[in-house]
Amino acid sequence: MSTLNIGLLGAGRIGKVHGAAIASTAGARLAAVADAFPEPARELADSYGAQVRSIEEIMDDDSIDAVFITTPTDMHADLIEDAARRGKKIFCEKPIDLDVSRVRQCLAVVAEHGATLMVGFNRRFDPNFKQVREQIDAGAIGDVEMVNIISRDPGPPPLSYMERSGGLFKDMTIHDFDMARFLLGEEPVAVSAVGSVLVDPAIATVPDIDSAAVTLVTASGKIAQISNSRRATYGYDQRIEVHGSMGMVRADNLHETTVELASASGYQSTPLMNFFLERYMPAYRAEVQLFVDVVLHGAVLTATGDDGLRSLVLAEAAARSVVERRTVSVDEI
Amino acid sequence: MSTLNIGLLGAGRIGKVHGAAIASTAGARLAAVADAFPEPARELADSYGAQVRSIEEIMDDDSIDAVFITTPTDMHADLIEDAARRGKKIFCEKPIDLDVSRVRQCLAVVAEHGATLMVGFNRRFDPNFKQVREQIDAGAIGDVEMVNIISRDPGPPPLSYMERSGGLFKDMTIHDFDMARFLLGEEPVAVSAVGSVLVDPAIATVPDIDSAAVTLVTASGKIAQISNSRRATYGYDQRIEVHGSMGMVRADNLHETTVELASASGYQSTPLMNFFLERYMPAYRAEVQLFVDVVLHGAVLTATGDDGLRSLVLAEAAARSVVERRTVSVDEI
Amino acid sequence: MSTLNIGLLGAGRIGKVHGAAIASTAGARLAAVADAFPEPARELADSYGAQVRSIEEIMDDDSIDAVFITTPTDMHADLIEDAARRGKKIFCEKPIDLDVSRVRQCLAVVAEHGATLMVGFNRRFDPNFKQVREQIDAGAIGDVEMVNIISRDPGPPPLSYMERSGGLFKDMTIHDFDMARFLLGEEPVAVSAVGSVLVDPAIATVPDIDSAAVTLVTASGKIAQISNSRRATYGYDQRIEVHGSMGMVRADNLHETTVELASASGYQSTPLMNFFLERYMPAYRAEVQLFVDVVLHGAVLTATGDDGLRSLVLAEAAARSVVERRTVSVDEI
Amino acid sequence: MSTLNIGLLGAGRIGKVHGAAIASTAGARLAAVADAFPEPARELADSYGAQVRSIEEIMDDDSIDAVFITTPTDMHADLIEDAARRGKKIFCEKPIDLDVSRVRQCLAVVAEHGATLMVGFNRRFDPNFKQVREQIDAGAIGDVEMVNIISRDPGPPPLSYMERSGGLFKDMTIHDFDMARFLLGEEPVAVSAVGSVLVDPAIATVPDIDSAAVTLVTASGKIAQISNSRRATYGYDQRIEVHGSMGMVRADNLHETTVELASASGYQSTPLMNFFLERYMPAYRAEVQLFVDVVLHGAVLTATGDDGLRSLVLAEAAARSVVERRTVSVDEI
Repeated sequence: MSTLNIGLLGAGRIGKVHGAAIASTAGARLAAVADAFPEPARELADSYGAQVRSIEEIMDDDSIDAVFITTPTDMHADLIEDAARRGKKIFCEKPIDLDVSRVRQCLAVVAEHGATLMVGFNRRFDPNFKQVREQIDAGAIGDVEMVNIISRDPGPPPLSYMERSGGLFKDMTIHDFDMARFLLGEEPVAVSAVGSVLVDPAIATVPDIDSAAVTLVTASGKIAQISNSRRATYGYDQRIEVHGSMGMVRADNLHETTVELASASGYQSTPLMNFFLERYMPAYRAEVQLFVDVVLHGAVLTATGDDGLRSLVLAEAAARSVVERRTVSVDEI
Repeated sequence: MSTLNIGLLGAGRIGKVHGAAIASTAGARLAAVADAFPEPARELADSYGAQVRSIEEIMDDDSIDAVFITTPTDMHADLIEDAARRGKKIFCEKPIDLDVSRVRQCLAVVAEHGATLMVGFNRRFDPNFKQVREQIDAGAIGDVEMVNIISRDPGPPPLSYMERSGGLFKDMTIHDFDMARFLLGEEPVAVSAVGSVLVDPAIATVPDIDSAAVTLVTASGKIAQISNSRRATYGYDQRIEVHGSMGMVRADNLHETTVELASASGYQSTPLMNFFLERYMPAYRAEVQLFVDVVLHGAVLTATGDDGLRSLVLAEAAARSVVERRTVSVDEI
Repeated sequence: MSTLNIGLLGAGRIGKVHGAAIASTAGARLAAVADAFPEPARELADSYGAQVRSIEEIMDDDSIDAVFITTPTDMHADLIEDAARRGKKIFCEKPIDLDVSRVRQCLAVVAEHGATLMVGFNRRFDPNFKQVREQIDAGAIGDVEMVNIISRDPGPPPLSYMERSGGLFKDMTIHDFDMARFLLGEEPVAVSAVGSVLVDPAIATVPDIDSAAVTLVTASGKIAQISNSRRATYGYDQRIEVHGSMGMVRADNLHETTVELASASGYQSTPLMNFFLERYMPAYRAEVQLFVDVVLHGAVLTATGDDGLRSLVLAEAAARSVVERRTVSVDEI
Repeated sequence: MSTLNIGLLGAGRIGKVHGAAIASTAGARLAAVADAFPEPARELADSYGAQVRSIEEIMDDDSIDAVFITTPTDMHADLIEDAARRGKKIFCEKPIDLDVSRVRQCLAVVAEHGATLMVGFNRRFDPNFKQVREQIDAGAIGDVEMVNIISRDPGPPPLSYMERSGGLFKDMTIHDFDMARFLLGEEPVAVSAVGSVLVDPAIATVPDIDSAAVTLVTASGKIAQISNSRRATYGYDQRIEVHGSMGMVRADNLHETTVELASASGYQSTPLMNFFLERYMPAYRAEVQLFVDVVLHGAVLTATGDDGLRSLVLAEAAARSVVERRTVSVDEI
């Protein structure tokens, strides 16, 4: 196989991102697009010379080597299982499911069929964050000791979205859990978390929280702290910082431009990029590239189904910690 | 009174800092210095034209208006009470005592005599941190929601020091507790903390910890996160960041110089200032200035005995949270 | 016309950049590619579904609305004239010609036929530099007084290239002359320049220089300083800074990533992006977009033939200033 | 001699700076202060336990080992000669005189008596700029090739001051000429300069200029560019940047604090320190320290009379270049 024929299941906002990334990746071809709504499917397919098909047709078509699952979350696990049974390579947006036991079940099916499953933890592929990890691997900071993650959205999503999102920890922090694991290099064994509604009182009625602080600890005592908020007036705030025995490595935010204005009131620089589609576009492209490299050239897969599961478990533990006001062990989940 | 005659009780490292600050403050005069060791007392007194006296002599001398208590911690509370009874104005290094009930007792004596007591939370007077607070007061970020504090020492103190220090939370984090309170503008009601020994295994034998993550929550849900370590190879790492409904304000680290070197391996700037005497020298001066302004000109006192007590309570709660692996309410202490 | 059919004349390094930019621009279609060498033409054409044609065929084809001239410099003026006569819209890489009188002649032909001619001063379209200009236009710094430009290549081009380049001022500084004019908002009337060979002695044998300092002055006394070198070990150094009566606005360099490493030797950040294709990719795209908007939607053209001429005149004046060790008036050229 | 007894000639603004620096320098004692006005002399003397004396009395007093000359400029050369004849060590504020031949004459007297003369080029002693030079000396950037200096005052001095100042180049740029020489490590042989009145038309009536661009070239072709203005709304702008064969080293500005405010309009940091007394206070202290070390401990003198002369010659050459619109050779002066 020299070109991967890909079927895209879901032509919404994130589907469009992956469609564009697939179209611009050497070795990948966007063959077909499916969506419950014909218009976005048609528009996306036309942009890149793909066909509009139903999910069933794509699954049935043996010339389709791989599927990208960008449907609503509640369809993810079923589609993964179906694709695994048909021998298709699978990319699935996070989370695999909101329910931990459903994810375990799904991963068992994936394992049974020896399927390739990559989960959409795009931030691992961000050139900045990736380089942080490379510096750690190169020994630049010695042994990792502490990780600090600040992750703030410009504003909360609609309440209707939040109602089906599984809550802040499964919807938003899940990326930070994955990043913490990616950087710690050792599994967290305990989670403590607090959460508040500070941005919009209506969020309490979902019910959900909009602000949170999470602390993860590994067996050897490494510590990760995550700071989350659904509000950041200055743009999409995404910072990571890793402290080790020999030093620190961090990745800072991306600003709109490098322009700075100096006047009697000081120096003014631009807000941060806003929002994730713009901020992480290079990451989405690199993610698709790795998927293709895994399938075609035997590259090592990262962001696996197991990664998806482990971050979901941390999210569940965090939620329990907030309610029970105590440190929750990961093996309780 | 136009000049404050000050007796300095303790001519060790921090005593010297305050001695120098007093000598350079208009309205203050370093009248006398006492220390268990004659040599440092003599040296310090000679530098600024002060007399060497015993603590008792200083306390007995009615021409001494104020005392600066920079003795070992276990003498603080007794000296405060003695000075309060004699009508002297009092500046005392933190902590007042390692024991919460002893502090409460001491503050009762202070209150009974209507004494002026200022506690050495020098960081409130750092020009950078002070400006952060001024921006908050000016409404620049709206309502405060979250505070992030990173506070890392270049290296651990000697084990012999740690043995008498009361532990990381009472010795080091106590400054961060005060800073969190200073910035939150609302009292924390709950504390969760984790601690590890990552820097030096010998610290576990003290017993103490060298790395910690603390989360504070106020009644209205405001959140503060503190990250502490006894190790920072790149200098004395002291950063604060406050998020509010309208924006964020922060103070960054101070580097040795502004010099930057660019070469094929990138851009290199200098390490951070190292250590607290250098980093916080302007803060120590401003602290003495306020003390003088309080006594001579009726300025409003900040860093009171009550501030000392409240931070100590948070430290005690944090220590308990580590052991009991749960969120500890402040009113449990 | 709703889509612009474009013929690309020249499939070398910069031709590929424009080909890619055209292909990704809504409203533009890469219809045909010509090159003296069949292979690069074929490769480029295939990537975007274009045809391989000769320059003559493209010029003859009435369905081709516009040409992008990315051939060697000595063909530019003839091709511009030919395209102007045939009523095609024209984009031409800088410089139009190395000879000022040939450029004047060529622009006369363009004017005679009322042709649209855009010159490849891509930096005007860089989002950072463009925003600097927008800040000036918005009055953020008051009246412009002084402009500082630092422009340093990572390393010198091959001697064989330099021999046909017209010299540093016409090859490299010409971009900075255009940028100075773009930012000053007033035409320079006098030029003083010095030049040295500091990077590689072989460059003196071309003969050419590799390091230069240029000062421009306008009629009202505004001043621009340009610093040029063919060497920058830390990447492609491109900075502009504009001082006005009310403040300063500047655009800083673009680094490879935002990653920073802190250790006992200080803070290390990444080198600059290297080289212009990567650094200015967004600018190349915006440039093509404006060309399309000019032709299809009547947008205002910037980077005109006149801009090309004026920067060439400044380059000629600078070269004369170096030789004659005096300030050269622009109207001498 | 273990302590240097110093007489301060002139208790104006800069005299006070040196008086304070002397008082805080180990090995130096402020013995006497002279000034045409009794009040500032008295105030300064009282602050540091010095006597008020006349210039003659100080010169006559053999117990005074050294004089600091901080009188008006037109007295400098006479006082230097007088002190040299009496065997006193001499520190003199820049410039030695506004007239090149007068300076040459004065330096001949200094040489004849083998006197120690240090000139107040304080910026060499700034910890940031000094470290730039140390990096150059350590070979961090290879061979120096180009120097860029931006030096902008917050605002113009009073016209009455400008009338006696010798003009922008002798009053303000002279510091930058010294810095360029300090960093180039090779004498400039040619100067080209342009100057404008952009800040305040009244300055043209002095006559003087308020904005200038100067280019210096050494025999081997090294280039320095200086950008000067009497206006910088954002504070005292003082930047240097040195490019070498292996890289670049620079020193950036000093801000009031490290505080940064982020909001929907971007990131705002504080203005620069304002003005030179605050910005260069550590430099003034280090300058006095070196003077003491030269006299007491045989340290190597930098900022000599010859340095004073050479910068004045560059200033004269720059002024001539502006008028004659040509590059002026240093040996013409």
